[in-house]
Amino acid sequence: MPVVSRKGKAMPESPIRKLAPFAEKAVREGKHIYHLNIGQPDIKTPTEAMEAVRNHKLEVLAYSHSAGFESFRDKLAGYYAKHDITISSDDILVTTGGSEALIFTMGSITDPGDEIIVPEPFYANYYSFSTQSTITVVPVISKIEDDFALPPIKNFEKLITPKTKAILICNPGNPTGYLYSKDEIKQLAALAIKHDVFLISDEVYREFVYDGSEHYSILQETELDDHAIVVDSVSKRYSMCGARIGCLVSKNKSVMETAMKFAQARLSPPTFAQIASEAALEAPDSYYTDTIDKYKERRNTLVQELRQIPGVKVAMPKGAFYCIAQLPVSNADHFAKWLLDDFDVDKQTVMVAPASGFYSSANVGLNQVRIAYVLNRRDLKKAVHILKLGLEKYTLQESTVTTQSTLLT
Amino acid sequence: MPVVSRKGKAMPESPIRKLAPFAEKAVREGKHIYHLNIGQPDIKTPTEAMEAVRNHKLEVLAYSHSAGFESFRDKLAGYYAKHDITISSDDILVTTGGSEALIFTMGSITDPGDEIIVPEPFYANYYSFSTQSTITVVPVISKIEDDFALPPIKNFEKLITPKTKAILICNPGNPTGYLYSKDEIKQLAALAIKHDVFLISDEVYREFVYDGSEHYSILQETELDDHAIVVDSVSKRYSMCGARIGCLVSKNKSVMETAMKFAQARLSPPTFAQIASEAALEAPDSYYTDTIDKYKERRNTLVQELRQIPGVKVAMPKGAFYCIAQLPVSNADHFAKWLLDDFDVDKQTVMVAPASGFYSSANVGLNQVRIAYVLNRRDLKKAVHILKLGLEKYTLQESTVTTQSTLLT
Repeated sequence: MPVVSRKGKAMPESPIRKLAPFAEKAVREGKHIYHLNIGQPDIKTPTEAMEAVRNHKLEVLAYSHSAGFESFRDKLAGYYAKHDITISSDDILVTTGGSEALIFTMGSITDPGDEIIVPEPFYANYYSFSTQSTITVVPVISKIEDDFALPPIKNFEKLITPKTKAILICNPGNPTGYLYSKDEIKQLAALAIKHDVFLISDEVYREFVYDGSEHYSILQETELDDHAIVVDSVSKRYSMCGARIGCLVSKNKSVMETAMKFAQARLSPPTFAQIASEAALEAPDSYYTDTIDKYKERRNTLVQELRQIPGVKVAMPKGAFYCIAQLPVSNADHFAKWLLDDFDVDKQTVMVAPASGFYSSANVGLNQVRIAYVLNRRDLKKAVHILKLGLEKYTLQESTVTTQSTLLT
Repeated sequence: MPVVSRKGKAMPESPIRKLAPFAEKAVREGKHIYHLNIGQPDIKTPTEAMEAVRNHKLEVLAYSHSAGFESFRDKLAGYYAKHDITISSDDILVTTGGSEALIFTMGSITDPGDEIIVPEPFYANYYSFSTQSTITVVPVISKIEDDFALPPIKNFEKLITPKTKAILICNPGNPTGYLYSKDEIKQLAALAIKHDVFLISDEVYREFVYDGSEHYSILQETELDDHAIVVDSVSKRYSMCGARIGCLVSKNKSVMETAMKFAQARLSPPTFAQIASEAALEAPDSYYTDTIDKYKERRNTLVQELRQIPGVKVAMPKGAFYCIAQLPVSNADHFAKWLLDDFDVDKQTVMVAPASGFYSSANVGLNQVRIAYVLNRRDLKKAVHILKLGLEKYTLQESTVTTQSTLLT
C-alpha cells in the first residue's frame, strides 16, 4: 500500500478538536456539554450580512476575481482607514479565511527548512500550517506570571539565524488574551527591520480589546511597510466563522504579487461569503460596541469565577475572547478527557482545550487549559461551577493515585 | 527589504489569467471580447441551490465540521452510487473547491522533492500546486494527432523512480477534452498497483461526456481501493464555480486521516456554499441532460467552424468543454496577445488561452491554444469567425515579417 507523506504524519491533530470523539461519546450518554473549548461565538451575525445573502439575485454562481471582489476590497480599505491604517485596495488580497492568508504568507516568504519565530503559547494551527509548509516554528516562551506579555526582545534576537524568515504574532492573542502595547510592537518592528525579516501579525481579534485599551497594528508603523504582513478575518469580528473569508494585507509589492500567484492557482474566494462579508462592513457601530460589551462582561464573570477556585491561576485577558488558566493538575490533557469521559454534574459537564497543543516546546503548559468565553454569563457561571467540582473530584483522585503509586515504588 | 521565497518566485502566473491586463486594455478601448479562454460556464446554476441560500434561516454563520456537513457527505455518497461508485460518507472529505482537494492530496502523499507523473497538456494549476508543495511534475506528452489519448503505458513506467508518489490524470480532460476509456483506466490502475504509487483522478467533468460514451471512474476499480484518490468539485457540474466546494474521495484510510488533519487546520469549508451544494444534488436529471445537450451542440458547432479555417487542426473532444486547437502560427502566446492588443472586427475580438501554459515540457504546444466552449452557439460562431479573420491578418503579417527578417540576414 502506498504510504502517506512524512509531513502528513507530522501534521498535528487539532488540540481543539482532538477530544471530539470523547465529546461525542458523552453526548451519546446523554450528557450536556458546556463548550469552553472552541472559539465559535454565539453572537448573532450582522443582519446586513445575512440579508445580503438572502436577497442575492445571482443566476450563475461565478468565480470572482482571484483577489476578491473589487468593491469589497475598496470597502475594506475604508474599514482599515477607520482604524488609522492607511492602505489601498491593492494592498489587500481576499482569502478563504485567515487560514488561507497564513498559508499564502508562508508560501510567499518561506521555503522548506526555513524558520519562523513565534511567541508561545500560540494559535495551534500556526504549527499545522508550518508543518504543511515544511518549515520550523521556533518558539519563544511567554509566561502566565507576566500575563503572557512580550518576552524580552533579546530572547527573539538570539534565535534569529539565516533561516529565519519572519516573526509571527497574534494580537490580541489567541490563546493568551494578551494585547501587545504600542511599545512592544515598536520593539518587534525595530528587530524585524534590523535583521530584515518579515513581521507577520494575526489581527483577527483587532476589535476585541477591553478596559479602554487601544489596538496598535503593525500596519501603523510606516517604517515597516516592506516588512509588515497582516492576516485578518471576518470570522470573529462579525461572528461569521462559517463564511471563510479573510485577507492578507501588505504594502510589500513583491509579497502581494507572489501571494496573488497562489491566489490565482486556487481561482477565487467563495462568492456568497464575499457578499456577506462586504455587507457586514455596513453593520452599525453599535454592533461592535454591543459585542465588545458582552465579551467584557463575560470575561469579568469568567475570571472572577475561575479565581475563586483553589489552585487556579488565570491571567486577566486584555483582548480576544480566550484566557489561559493554570489548573492544580499535573496533566490537563488527561483532565480534559476525564471531564468528558468520567465526570458529570447532573448529566452536565464542560469541555476545555488542553494548552499543551498551543506550545511547541515540550513539557510546557501541561497544567494549563485554554478557555473561550463564548457562552452567555449564566452558562459561563454554570460551566465554571462544574469545572470547580470536577477539579475537586479529580485532584482528590489524582492525589490518591499519586500516593498509591508512591507507595508502590 | 526581505525577499520572497524561491517557490513563490517559481509559481507560474495563470496562463488563463495572465493576458488579463491586455483584455482590460482592450475593454477600455471599447472592444467587446468573446471569452474562449476561461472555463466559467454561462449555464444557470440549479434553482434548488440558489433558492436554498436565499431561504437560509441562519442567525449565526458558524463553522461546519472540518470534513463538511454530515448531511451533505451522506447525499454525496448517494450521488456516487448513481454513478456505480460504492463509497461511504467516511470516504469523502468536503473541500474548498477541487483546488483544495488537490492541495490536500499533494500534502498528504508527497514531501519536498517528490515527483508526480502527469500526461500533458494538463490543467495548468497542477503545476502551480506542485510548485506550492515543492514537488516536481514529470510530464508524459500526449499528442493532438492521437486526440490526446493515453500515451503508451511504457512511457509512464520508464519515468517511475523511488521519488514517484503518484500518477495524476484529469478525466475527462481539461484542456484536452479527451475521455479515457475503461481499458486505459485499467492500464493505469495496473501500473499504480505494480509500482505501489497513488493514482489521482480529477473527475470534475464526470457528467460532461458526449456521443454515448460512458465515464469510467478509478473508484470503480475495486482493486485500486488503497491507491485511488479522486478530486471532485461542484464548480462545472452545477455551474457553481463561485461556491468553492469540492471533495476528496478515497478508501485509503491513512490518506483520509491525513487529509483530515489538513482540513482541521483550515477549520471548515464555506457554510453557505455547502448549503447550495447540498441542495444542488436535488436538481432533476433534466438539469444534467439539458446542460450536456447544450455543450454537445456547442462542441459540434465549435469544431465544425474551427475545421473550416485553413491550417487549423483540432481534436474532437469526447468530454469536458474544452478543446485544443493547433493554429498556423509559430507562437500562440504572441498571437493571443495580438488579438487583444492590435486586432478587432468592428470593435470585437476574441480571447483564447495559449496552450504553452498547459505543458511543462519546454517548447511543446507553442502553436496551440485552449478553447472553452462556454458561450452560446451564436456567440461561438461569431467568435470563431473573428478568430478566422484574425488568423488571416496575423499570418499574413507573420509571413511578411519572416520574409523581411530572412532578407535582412
